[in-house]
Amino acid sequence: MLGRLVEALGAKVRTDDATLARARADESGHATAAPPLALVEAEDIEDVQAVCRICTATGTPIVTRGAGTGLAGGAIGGAGEVVLSTARMDRILEISPANRLAVVQPGVLNGALNTVLAERGLWWPPDPASKDISSVGGNIATNAGGLLCAKYGVTRESVLALKVVLADGTLISVGHRTVKGVTGLDLCALMIGSEGVLGIIVECTLRLRPAITGPVPTLGAYFDDVAAAAAACSAVTAAHLEPAVMELLDEPILAQVSAYTGVDLIGRGRSFVLIQTDGPGAQQTAEAIRAVLEENGATVEFARDADEAALLVQVRRQVHPALTQLGTALIEDVAVPRDRLADMYVKIAEIAERHGVMVPTNAHAGDGNLHPTFVFAGTEVPPRVWDAADELFRYALELGGTLTGEHGVGVLKRRWLGDELGTDQLALQRRIKAAFDPDGLLNPGKVFAPAE
Amino acid sequence: MLGRLVEALGAKVRTDDATLARARADESGHATAAPPLALVEAEDIEDVQAVCRICTATGTPIVTRGAGTGLAGGAIGGAGEVVLSTARMDRILEISPANRLAVVQPGVLNGALNTVLAERGLWWPPDPASKDISSVGGNIATNAGGLLCAKYGVTRESVLALKVVLADGTLISVGHRTVKGVTGLDLCALMIGSEGVLGIIVECTLRLRPAITGPVPTLGAYFDDVAAAAAACSAVTAAHLEPAVMELLDEPILAQVSAYTGVDLIGRGRSFVLIQTDGPGAQQTAEAIRAVLEENGATVEFARDADEAALLVQVRRQVHPALTQLGTALIEDVAVPRDRLADMYVKIAEIAERHGVMVPTNAHAGDGNLHPTFVFAGTEVPPRVWDAADELFRYALELGGTLTGEHGVGVLKRRWLGDELGTDQLALQRRIKAAFDPDGLLNPGKVFAPAE
Repeated sequence: MLGRLVEALGAKVRTDDATLARARADESGHATAAPPLALVEAEDIEDVQAVCRICTATGTPIVTRGAGTGLAGGAIGGAGEVVLSTARMDRILEISPANRLAVVQPGVLNGALNTVLAERGLWWPPDPASKDISSVGGNIATNAGGLLCAKYGVTRESVLALKVVLADGTLISVGHRTVKGVTGLDLCALMIGSEGVLGIIVECTLRLRPAITGPVPTLGAYFDDVAAAAAACSAVTAAHLEPAVMELLDEPILAQVSAYTGVDLIGRGRSFVLIQTDGPGAQQTAEAIRAVLEENGATVEFARDADEAALLVQVRRQVHPALTQLGTALIEDVAVPRDRLADMYVKIAEIAERHGVMVPTNAHAGDGNLHPTFVFAGTEVPPRVWDAADELFRYALELGGTLTGEHGVGVLKRRWLGDELGTDQLALQRRIKAAFDPDGLLNPGKVFAPAE
Repeated sequence: MLGRLVEALGAKVRTDDATLARARADESGHATAAPPLALVEAEDIEDVQAVCRICTATGTPIVTRGAGTGLAGGAIGGAGEVVLSTARMDRILEISPANRLAVVQPGVLNGALNTVLAERGLWWPPDPASKDISSVGGNIATNAGGLLCAKYGVTRESVLALKVVLADGTLISVGHRTVKGVTGLDLCALMIGSEGVLGIIVECTLRLRPAITGPVPTLGAYFDDVAAAAAACSAVTAAHLEPAVMELLDEPILAQVSAYTGVDLIGRGRSFVLIQTDGPGAQQTAEAIRAVLEENGATVEFARDADEAALLVQVRRQVHPALTQLGTALIEDVAVPRDRLADMYVKIAEIAERHGVMVPTNAHAGDGNLHPTFVFAGTEVPPRVWDAADELFRYALELGGTLTGEHGVGVLKRRWLGDELGTDQLALQRRIKAAFDPDGLLNPGKVFAPAE
């Protein structure tokens, strides 16, 4: 099998220990039990097709991998598997202002693309925290979220069309180069967030927006407790106001990030909400938001200048590094309906206390997406953490929420998949997977647990 | 079979001639060769499940039908089929400003829903021309477009979750009540635009926006010819400007609609573009658009007041009624990349002349969606019209466009489906259809031609 790969792809087939070790893990901290057979650095669509044909002929599983920044173990390769890397397929093929679209290979990094687009007054909105190091293909394969989704949508809203290689090497084109298009089933939308189990994304036609221009008013709001902060954020949404960014930090995070950055936020309140508005009417919207927050108990301050705004944003960005100072940090990713954010925070505190675990939690409060972060000593996740996570997931589902807002299922959440989808839908999803990939070669064991 | 239906559903089963005659046709002008067995007026999810169970047990095809305003023959019932109407499932179940969502039954009319939402400062953006008479379920089943899509997205962007009954009566819930959610494959997105071939939409969780407030500047732009008008519209997009509405009328339409409404637009130019901007910065955007249009050869006038603006909008709305004065009007629905709009207009004129047919064409110029309208005498579509349409479709595909921007495939366009999707993708789409509906009972012959 490896011989056939090398014959077809030469030095693009990597089997050195360092490469294979990297391919076993992602940014979740999780790794497979053993290294994969090989990692293939595809450089074009033909390479991808060649790998698929050889793997189909030999019954070898294929794990597609972008930049490896996933947080759910969705792109990690294990024993007997070939990891198909699209990292070198990183060219921007076209930028069309008149069609407000770009065509790119999947390996281009989100941040690198946006740097080029910005020079032309354009913007691709998906903004996962990892955007400087994560690839467009990976963003699409996970339907990545980020900070701006309540106003600007998730990745799905920013993709027009895809070229996809199926497990047997067949190339198909799904979606449209046009804004509208309803010919047949929407397989482009279905591919988005499919985590490598349906096909391999080899070319992406992206829907762009005009770059945001003008000032970005920035507010810091301090609250006495996190439930009040969460309720205030819900009130902003209920008042029909649209912040671009509305990020909530709870007390444990505020304490740690204040210590880590030296910016004393915890001295000013026990919970903090960072708000930014943008586009036409930004100042007016920011003032209306301030009024709602103050009515809901906040002390609110406008950043006086761009430097102060940048400092607050920087503090928010340091949440994860700050938490890793305390131990291993397992980031969770539930989302709840926006008016249940306060309920979720109350429950998290209760679960944390009962299980004796630390669960500092920040939230993209504009869209109800929380990142409860389990912090523990050592590299093995202790059973009490999984017990606490299990309770937390089930409560999010009870509230009408979801297991994962933006990170994906991967291997880490597949055991809860049926709890959210229900038995009937799970069976249907497996039939759809089989319609794409009858031999079950694409990313087996990811999203869907191995059949029993 | 009919006996079992009546036993289970009583008077909800309609078999009178008038009802069955209506169920054979939609607004496309096309009708089936013979009436269906029955039309069932479902009043709740249990009714839908009961129909599905009986139809599955007896091998009877099911045609789901909303308000019957389709333009592609997607919801018309024929011999041996049961038409399942969701028109009576028309309740609004919930409106949540704090979650910016509404939960509705599929039969509620788009316009009726938006009237209720407007009282609360909210808005569901999909705006097909039929919105006062078309249902939310039908809008979703066709991924309906409209005038506002370039700025506000198509229906897919405005749906969070669905309850769906499968052919065998199984009820599943797809999508999320949350803004973000990536648990499993995105079957909610897949259902949108699926034209009744995968499942029956029985409950809809809709993503709302704050209602647009403030003035809506309205511009009329007059051009010497339609290609210049189309090119000017492309220039607006390329200049990163975002009109809410940008509607283009060509010379034959302008002549006819001027005569029909008594508003003399044809005296002022041979092509007309109606533009509206809205939201924060609307006036500034409108002025920037005026400048681009003037640079591209237009004579531009702002509507002086709300009455004059309403008059221009009203003229645009009279396009279809005006054309039906000339004969039978078959509306087509191609979409092309926005910078190819002028090319498409040139080709349409050439095709019309060569085949000796009239093809007045308006366009949603902001998104590249054209409605070439074939006008002919009598009710039968003459062969030369299909020949001309065939050329027109193929040229749209050549330009990187699509057969149908917003009306759907139904029965009228299924013969071109493989030309757009390709043989491999068409086979995959049929396998997905079979994963949902193994017995092929849901809307057979729609979208996908009967297997040969």
